[in-house]
Amino acid sequence: MNNEETTAYLHRSIPLTAAMDVRVLAQEPGRVEILAPIAANANHHGSAFGGSLSTLAILSGWVLVQQTLDAAGIGAKLMVQRSECDYLEPALADFSAESLLPEAEWPRFVQMLQKRGRARITVTTTIRIGARDVARASGTYAAIRSDT
Amino acid sequence: MNNEETTAYLHRSIPLTAAMDVRVLAQEPGRVEILAPIAANANHHGSAFGGSLSTLAILSGWVLVQQTLDAAGIGAKLMVQRSECDYLEPALADFSAESLLPEAEWPRFVQMLQKRGRARITVTTTIRIGARDVARASGTYAAIRSDT
Repeated sequence: MNNEETTAYLHRSIPLTAAMDVRVLAQEPGRVEILAPIAANANHHGSAFGGSLSTLAILSGWVLVQQTLDAAGIGAKLMVQRSECDYLEPALADFSAESLLPEAEWPRFVQMLQKRGRARITVTTTIRIGARDVARASGTYAAIRSDT
Repeated sequence: MNNEETTAYLHRSIPLTAAMDVRVLAQEPGRVEILAPIAANANHHGSAFGGSLSTLAILSGWVLVQQTLDAAGIGAKLMVQRSECDYLEPALADFSAESLLPEAEWPRFVQMLQKRGRARITVTTTIRIGARDVARASGTYAAIRSDT
């Protein structure tokens, strides 16, 4: 799926992502970036609502892990188990979340998933406006094999 | 404001809360409870989207601290600074977040806010379906006095 197709898939699968008007900007091996426009995600101070920042981070990490499993041909259902987010400064414009795959952890995660049918992995995400970090987050996802 | 008025205020001030169809169930000294219907907050597995759970916790803690400051006649702008959420089990029905004021911390928070013009406080929130806990969260909020 290209960026537009993944965006449409998310809007269809998770209605809140349509309300947030999220748009996938990049999906490549080991990296996913998703944008949220400030218009749909502001609070009454005119800055981004913390819930939108937290949600974008959870979503971006989820897409990254799910796509990496899909690319490896591993069928698994993925659920967020824990999320954390530090809000560094008010986000006053469109913001994007970039999640990077923890390359060092990945082989152990896949091995555990193949062997036990379940495994967990933690992904870190940075939310930026241009080059400026506005929030840093991490999400731990639990995978359960669905193709065995 | 009664529950309906606070609900309408949230929907108007933070559009994402309208998309989530949140409804204030209780607002009393030291306690706020806000519901989110599963219909507007599901993912493609039919369970609550993690972003919705995290967001409801952030919102509920924010309403609690803001209302407690308002009731004390202290003008302050409140922003979430850090949030954490543990997702205990899939939420398959309407869920509600209950935030409780950390009574032991409150006097120090108000004193610091009066003296320095800024202070932080951490609120814990439990998300339940009926009597069953489905997520536990905490949010740290930074207040800046706006009436001095």
